[in-house]
Amino acid sequence: MVITSKDNKRIKEIRKLLTKKGRTKAQQFLIEGEHLIEEAIQFGAHIEEIFVLETDTYNFDLKTTVVTKDVMSSLSTLVTPPGIIAVVRMETKSIESDRVLAIDGIQDPGNLGTLIRTADAFNFKRILIGKNTVDPYSDKVLRSSQGSHFHVSLEDVDLIEVMQNFNGTILTTDLSGESLTDKITDEKIMIVLGNEGQGVSQEVLEHANYKVKIDMPGDAESLNVAVAGGILMHQYSL
Amino acid sequence: MVITSKDNKRIKEIRKLLTKKGRTKAQQFLIEGEHLIEEAIQFGAHIEEIFVLETDTYNFDLKTTVVTKDVMSSLSTLVTPPGIIAVVRMETKSIESDRVLAIDGIQDPGNLGTLIRTADAFNFKRILIGKNTVDPYSDKVLRSSQGSHFHVSLEDVDLIEVMQNFNGTILTTDLSGESLTDKITDEKIMIVLGNEGQGVSQEVLEHANYKVKIDMPGDAESLNVAVAGGILMHQYSL
Repeated sequence: MVITSKDNKRIKEIRKLLTKKGRTKAQQFLIEGEHLIEEAIQFGAHIEEIFVLETDTYNFDLKTTVVTKDVMSSLSTLVTPPGIIAVVRMETKSIESDRVLAIDGIQDPGNLGTLIRTADAFNFKRILIGKNTVDPYSDKVLRSSQGSHFHVSLEDVDLIEVMQNFNGTILTTDLSGESLTDKITDEKIMIVLGNEGQGVSQEVLEHANYKVKIDMPGDAESLNVAVAGGILMHQYSL
Repeated sequence: MVITSKDNKRIKEIRKLLTKKGRTKAQQFLIEGEHLIEEAIQFGAHIEEIFVLETDTYNFDLKTTVVTKDVMSSLSTLVTPPGIIAVVRMETKSIESDRVLAIDGIQDPGNLGTLIRTADAFNFKRILIGKNTVDPYSDKVLRSSQGSHFHVSLEDVDLIEVMQNFNGTILTTDLSGESLTDKITDEKIMIVLGNEGQGVSQEVLEHANYKVKIDMPGDAESLNVAVAGGILMHQYSL
């Protein structure tokens, strides 16, 4: 059976996953395209259902619903919708990691997605999402992270509480901090990155053990937060 | 006098600068918002004219045309247009620099803008734009670079020709390259970064002296090109 109407009850349900509110309520999110779905399966994500274009063929052993192009377009955020979309269950993996990345209010989805991808590359496998941060399950974040969502644990937390209980070095960026060096030898390291405009909050600064600045001999006033995060995570990768 | 019509001849002329074709022909580009304009003035860019919203007041000593909100919207790429837009002359500054960044086919405007900002921060003051690269004067590139366009020289070049004549070390990224170290001691260094999907071209690879890979102990397949560029430029900043 092919679903041909955008007003189909199930399709209307799934379409709610295009908003943060809908995702939070259902504890599900959407991923678009074959590559991301393969990545999700390989890393043990729980895919509840896939929606496939009637003209396409895929070999996934999953509950499959066939839809028309019109219906697929209504589920996709892309101008050119993919041939396949999956509904994935939101799960917090509990991964142990001696490297932790904490996000304090990053707003740009491309920056957050890039940071998740970079954290995955450098083995910062626990990622803590503080309040006022863009929803990590939005389509743009998922697209920029290139599948790294499925390799890390993403945890919604009260950052200050976690920082207070962390038994390792907490490092954050601060323009009046020390120049970046290799000197941290602690087994556990947490890097906290702040909002694009304001940086990390005052409270976070007060709870950090080590404030670092990346020396910029040139004329730019600051670095993009995903680039700064990349340089720091590369320095302390495991 | 206030220009009230989007069909005004001068406004139609300026609107052509919203396309690459129009920018190339006129050798001009647009910048939006007070901050970028201040940056442009401070670093000696040649601003030909500014367009200001009739309800706003600015203190720039420049040829000024006052326009209505409707007209301003027609010149802006933003959902909420700024109160001021400037027409800037495209000029290739000739800056001498022992650090050069070369771009071989980067397509995403956010990536290119972030790389220009990062190059500026780490004193890679000459930026070479190879063919098949996104137009550095598009609004999204300008927005991501945060004013760094005015601190560097941007040169449209034949990359291979420039590489052949470069008297220093040319470094590029390659998954089968050596691990990144500090060992380059050459006075002049050029870093070449490639397209998001394909990397640098075969020809560029053949002309590079040093192929480097950034070790990724984790599970991501690759780094975002602006992050990889940031790590490399940080390593070899002057």
